[in-house]
Amino acid sequence: MPGDDCSELRINGDRLLAEMTALAAVGGTPDGGVNRPAFSEADLEARRWFRASAEKAGLEFRQDGAGNLSAVLPAANPESGPQTILCGSHLDSVPKGGRYDGALGVVTALEIVRTLKEAGIGLPVNVEAMDFSDEEGTWISLFGSRAVTGMLNEETLNNPKGGSQAFEARLAAAGLTKAGALASTRDPSMIKAWVECHIEQGTRLEESGSAIGIVSGVVGIAMYWLNFIGRADHAGTTPMDRRLDALRGVAAFVGQARELVINRFPQGVCNCGTVEVEPGAHNIVPERARLALEFRHSDPGVIDAMREALINLALHVVEVEGLRLEVEQIGLHEPALTDREVTAAIESACKKLGLSNIHMPSFAGHDTQNMAAITQAGMFFVPSVEGASHSPREFTPDEDCINAGNVLLHTVLGLALAG
Amino acid sequence: MPGDDCSELRINGDRLLAEMTALAAVGGTPDGGVNRPAFSEADLEARRWFRASAEKAGLEFRQDGAGNLSAVLPAANPESGPQTILCGSHLDSVPKGGRYDGALGVVTALEIVRTLKEAGIGLPVNVEAMDFSDEEGTWISLFGSRAVTGMLNEETLNNPKGGSQAFEARLAAAGLTKAGALASTRDPSMIKAWVECHIEQGTRLEESGSAIGIVSGVVGIAMYWLNFIGRADHAGTTPMDRRLDALRGVAAFVGQARELVINRFPQGVCNCGTVEVEPGAHNIVPERARLALEFRHSDPGVIDAMREALINLALHVVEVEGLRLEVEQIGLHEPALTDREVTAAIESACKKLGLSNIHMPSFAGHDTQNMAAITQAGMFFVPSVEGASHSPREFTPDEDCINAGNVLLHTVLGLALAG
Repeated sequence: MPGDDCSELRINGDRLLAEMTALAAVGGTPDGGVNRPAFSEADLEARRWFRASAEKAGLEFRQDGAGNLSAVLPAANPESGPQTILCGSHLDSVPKGGRYDGALGVVTALEIVRTLKEAGIGLPVNVEAMDFSDEEGTWISLFGSRAVTGMLNEETLNNPKGGSQAFEARLAAAGLTKAGALASTRDPSMIKAWVECHIEQGTRLEESGSAIGIVSGVVGIAMYWLNFIGRADHAGTTPMDRRLDALRGVAAFVGQARELVINRFPQGVCNCGTVEVEPGAHNIVPERARLALEFRHSDPGVIDAMREALINLALHVVEVEGLRLEVEQIGLHEPALTDREVTAAIESACKKLGLSNIHMPSFAGHDTQNMAAITQAGMFFVPSVEGASHSPREFTPDEDCINAGNVLLHTVLGLALAG
Repeated sequence: MPGDDCSELRINGDRLLAEMTALAAVGGTPDGGVNRPAFSEADLEARRWFRASAEKAGLEFRQDGAGNLSAVLPAANPESGPQTILCGSHLDSVPKGGRYDGALGVVTALEIVRTLKEAGIGLPVNVEAMDFSDEEGTWISLFGSRAVTGMLNEETLNNPKGGSQAFEARLAAAGLTKAGALASTRDPSMIKAWVECHIEQGTRLEESGSAIGIVSGVVGIAMYWLNFIGRADHAGTTPMDRRLDALRGVAAFVGQARELVINRFPQGVCNCGTVEVEPGAHNIVPERARLALEFRHSDPGVIDAMREALINLALHVVEVEGLRLEVEQIGLHEPALTDREVTAAIESACKKLGLSNIHMPSFAGHDTQNMAAITQAGMFFVPSVEGASHSPREFTPDEDCINAGNVLLHTVLGLALAG
């Protein structure tokens, strides 16, 4: 056992930053962001980048049936049937996203296995740096961690956001199949822990002047399509007061939803992210308007209350406008708590490194919430300047990126050497 | 000269209705409507249908560089350098439109040239049944009549609604080019008149119990994209009161525009036909929302006042929401008056046929407004049940379709034999 001499070990900061820069060029946009929706050409290129980076470092590369990628550093004694500590995040981005969300967690994970390998430290566990597929839900949110944890079922698989046929085509482009994804469940008894490092995507760290946010739990997220249905009519000849205009329903809902949540659910948030209008022409009164709604809260009971209040608002709106409402739930992630032992390991890594920290919930969904169901799971944040996220304006200073790598390194070492 | 014996001439009503039914199957939708956006595969099929129908009747078929189709019955004495009476409408539809809008005008025009040919009446003019390309503006509204009248310019041609590349691809699918479209201007001195028959798309005829609406003029139409621009942010971690949500701008505008127009411009109408949101995901605060706005009035001065009031409303909204506004004008059709002589010919056709009629403006734009700039142009309506239009619910009873054919026949005969 390596013992105390590990406490001076540090990742290679310059190499970490160089890898961040190299990865940001994959699907990079002119404004400094990245556009790497899951299984897009840019995402496939990022996957090739991961493989090359792992193999260059002499690590074992694996891809499972859901397209989750791994770079593995085996335990000192592979014959002992060792457990594995998993760490990482995701390479995919939202459309027109930023270069840190997910990417920092994968790059730091790759960096710590490289660092451990170079240091020649024999650990009693395997350490595996991971990229989880489609965390952002271009098709199915938290797709990769659902597959690994056995939470992926056929119904979910057959109802991806962008349509089943398009999804299968993109899976095929990545060399994957639905059947393979369903068969990617891992044996929980072989997993010792999961640790995820991520940018905060908010302003609490910045406001408190802390270097590290130790995540106490992940909020639940409910996702819907609200379909407002009216009647298509000629936009010239139909008098304005006789129209059944679906877009008027959306307008009234969007106008009132924010105040409803701010006033009645101050610890929650909601978002109306997009609208699709049919038939969709200047000269036709909108017949259907499909509104993307999501809302988040850390309390499962309040999620239910928010659902009721928001759907009641939509029902009120369609009554006023003479429309019909069709509600489609497309996703629900329950709130999840993180593990005490992992949280303690993060805390003691911060102490070892002299980094200030606070405990906080995560308002964003993460693969950690799924992993928490099958293993001891923990997560920590580094600051996002101005809280910018899901945007090319995402920025985390170099020093914080390096802190992220070192906290991850010592958290994993702490967990590996504890038992 | 045939003289008085023409007054008993009638179109073949059964044949007209059979042709309406056959055409409705081209791009037909399960709900009884049609989906034939200009230059779509369904529109190309409708064009083949026109050609086959013309050739079957022994008429000369022509296609000009803008894809306008003609079925020509030559004058009795072609060597005299006769002028041509043009009549017709358009085969294209809005997305998910109805089977009468445009189609009735083309089918009646084909039917009257067939009827004239069969009757063996030698006229001093050519009579030409026409289909004008892209009346509905899938790419460029009133495209075909712009080309014929010299109103099509390169700027318009290079800025079609769906993007220049896609437009060129669809032109190519129809065997057309932009250069060919620009070269399709016709010599006004060779055109004697234009007559268009169309469904009313409103309820005035129904409410007044009249068979025919004689159009006094066509309202002007202004078309815009209003771009509301905010900031993309993470929809979980960004507090709701710190967001710059572009869709909130659209919601406030849509919520107020209707009342503004009803209260301040009671003789006008406006429509918000579609919205396009970017980045456009459940979990991202909308950065850009692009709203399709159009408004109509028969008075050019009031069109200007409506523009000012609506853009001021948008500016007010973006100020309240902390957004930016970008205004793109994408089309303007000036109001147009119809010709007295053609109007009189329609009126006397109605009298001959014993059909009640009223004079009325058109709230919808039509190729007639362009043709009015180069020749004597007239137009008449037949009833639309419940005013339904740009919708699969469009319906005009068989008797009214047959009336349409006979009024067109005797209007054209009246104009042909007048001079």
